[in-house]
Amino acid sequence: MAEFTEYMTRDLPAGLRLVEGGVTAAPGFRAGSTYSGIKSDVGTPDLAILVADVPCVAAGTFTTSKTASHTVHLCKEHLAAANLHAQAVVVNSGNANCSNGRQGYQDAKRMTELTAQKFGIPAELVLVSSTGIIGRLLPMEKVEQGIAAVVPNEQGGTDFAQGILTTDTRQKTVAVEFEIGDKTVRLGGSTKGAGMIYPNMATMLCYITTNIAVNPQFLQRELRAAVADSFNMVCIDGDMSTNDTVLLLANGLAGNEPLRDGVTGADTFSTALRYVTRYLAREIARDGEGATRLMTVQVRGAATEADAKAAARAITASPLWQCAVAGGDPNWGRIVAALGASGADLRHDVLELWLGDVQIMHGGVGTDYDQEAAKEAMAGKEVRVTVDLHIGNAEATAWGCDLTHGYIDENTLYTR
Amino acid sequence: MAEFTEYMTRDLPAGLRLVEGGVTAAPGFRAGSTYSGIKSDVGTPDLAILVADVPCVAAGTFTTSKTASHTVHLCKEHLAAANLHAQAVVVNSGNANCSNGRQGYQDAKRMTELTAQKFGIPAELVLVSSTGIIGRLLPMEKVEQGIAAVVPNEQGGTDFAQGILTTDTRQKTVAVEFEIGDKTVRLGGSTKGAGMIYPNMATMLCYITTNIAVNPQFLQRELRAAVADSFNMVCIDGDMSTNDTVLLLANGLAGNEPLRDGVTGADTFSTALRYVTRYLAREIARDGEGATRLMTVQVRGAATEADAKAAARAITASPLWQCAVAGGDPNWGRIVAALGASGADLRHDVLELWLGDVQIMHGGVGTDYDQEAAKEAMAGKEVRVTVDLHIGNAEATAWGCDLTHGYIDENTLYTR
Repeated sequence: MAEFTEYMTRDLPAGLRLVEGGVTAAPGFRAGSTYSGIKSDVGTPDLAILVADVPCVAAGTFTTSKTASHTVHLCKEHLAAANLHAQAVVVNSGNANCSNGRQGYQDAKRMTELTAQKFGIPAELVLVSSTGIIGRLLPMEKVEQGIAAVVPNEQGGTDFAQGILTTDTRQKTVAVEFEIGDKTVRLGGSTKGAGMIYPNMATMLCYITTNIAVNPQFLQRELRAAVADSFNMVCIDGDMSTNDTVLLLANGLAGNEPLRDGVTGADTFSTALRYVTRYLAREIARDGEGATRLMTVQVRGAATEADAKAAARAITASPLWQCAVAGGDPNWGRIVAALGASGADLRHDVLELWLGDVQIMHGGVGTDYDQEAAKEAMAGKEVRVTVDLHIGNAEATAWGCDLTHGYIDENTLYTR
Repeated sequence: MAEFTEYMTRDLPAGLRLVEGGVTAAPGFRAGSTYSGIKSDVGTPDLAILVADVPCVAAGTFTTSKTASHTVHLCKEHLAAANLHAQAVVVNSGNANCSNGRQGYQDAKRMTELTAQKFGIPAELVLVSSTGIIGRLLPMEKVEQGIAAVVPNEQGGTDFAQGILTTDTRQKTVAVEFEIGDKTVRLGGSTKGAGMIYPNMATMLCYITTNIAVNPQFLQRELRAAVADSFNMVCIDGDMSTNDTVLLLANGLAGNEPLRDGVTGADTFSTALRYVTRYLAREIARDGEGATRLMTVQVRGAATEADAKAAARAITASPLWQCAVAGGDPNWGRIVAALGASGADLRHDVLELWLGDVQIMHGGVGTDYDQEAAKEAMAGKEVRVTVDLHIGNAEATAWGCDLTHGYIDENTLYTR
């Protein structure tokens, strides 16, 4: 029996069961990774492949950066050309394949062609991601050898999860099982994160697979909505990357009636997808570069959902508050400053604020709270901030982490 | 003869001469400061007063935070009530007088009343600023004693500059002298900065004085324009404060024809004001919390000035790039990522980028630049980044600093 963490079980919706396997939890998917030499640290896997037994309905969301990687452009092209279908994904870490000219685009295309040849499928059904340093050409000889060397298999979810990491300190994987009518469905995924994480995704890659049958437009809409409330609500450092990608492949082997609005199981699937994406998003925050504490910020009582999101994200994105979280210092004025600067509609004189369960602010004024209790609320592995704006009914949750020496150390000499 | 730094002299426009004295450089102003006990570090001045011999035309720009300090609201009220005039400014450091309820407003009002009584002027002619920790009531007994104790004098510019500091490591002051017709005019100012500095000002206070005669609406417009290109282009950490204030007092004693559009001297004044505000803004960046390197980012070839500003600020605000600057690591991909995420209109394939004088990127692709030269461009006390977007003619300059252990140390345990 697998061991599942407290973070996995605490928010698990009814009707979902945790299972192992990540991107290979669902039947009909194989995955694997290898060390090809793209990364300088010998032996660390840097090339990963995910492949399905049959063509899948596919959905994707991507960085909005105007200096996006070639891989992002090519994924969009292939998804459009294949009418929202895909059968394989090839991913390298160690090189972002970005800002390196036309050759970079050709190299991305070549990665899809080599992967297509390996499995005897059309290149348009192959999607590609890269993550790592910007501005260098891929060492294509190594990439070719790597693609040839990977042996995707039905137990390869863990290898795949390892192969996509960069400065992450651990794998981030989850999978669930649930029923739709008499069919058993699985949905699982893996992600990488660490630095440069911010609204509208970040240096984050995420791959999700399922054996459900689903309408392509429905899948794209559901993925977009799930990403908006999960990966787009994570902030490590306010930076957004050139390579952010979330891909979801559904192979249909469960044999259910293809999901669309109104079909039985659509709601359950939506719940499962939201659980998986939110879990993985929180894992990114928990494993931010140098992070020692997870920060969860809930804003309620906002006039609009956009306001709630802006306010929650502003708090997670404040370096001053991130430093206070690192020091376990309940310096809540920095939350007030972040709220005021967030652009969210608010009234200073009705603000309420909690650190953990300790009410710090009422009617826009600091309460006579217990100093020791406030410090205790900042002392654990997780710091919860709750804000009630008291001017509406919208709410949102964002995740972040503290800002520590570790972040600085990680990022001062990255290219050397 | 005073010693003026290289930073003061290098951009000094023709027709301006550097002088000493800061806010008391211009005739008809007195200033001073004292230690009143608001700050916990005994002996550090924490209460400063600036007073003019006669009522001045006054202009102000303030934080756009929705959780602004009481002092910001009161300054706006007094400027409106006195029809853009003021005669004195009282400033405390150590306590932001923010998020502390109605009593905080009364205390701010009381500060103006006590200062008004001290000089026998109407309270409406007194402006007030606070900076420091949010959420605590001012120790009004100490504030009262402090206001009584300050002895403003004509050589008090230095004491005033010292009294407004918080985590700053040094005073930031400059003053210039110039002629308008046969009249000699002086313009000088002091600022504080350090943390929580970002577009739309930050935990920054700035006070500027001049003996020029000027139309109030003209002065307000000129100040707003100067601040937009100076203090609003400084980023230390992406946070914006609740207390940011820039005040400019013009006592008219120079006896020139009051400046307005078309009057002789209006352009010279505008040049002087821009020099002073840009110098002080850059000083804030150079003295960012934990900063070891000043970062100057120039973006040109933008479609609009707003785009140029957004792009320049995004680079200064990127924690990943700030870390690279700290490490002297020419990891220019992070600049590309920041540009792509900035929202500025751009074309990836025409981007040009320089570090110092070393061209790093041409046509959106890394050049075959000299690695040692690039490292050298990152090794000094100042790192210059130049970007040409090549899609228009607009340009902007922003200032920032590196992100170091010192910033973390400064901010992890601030309230303890």
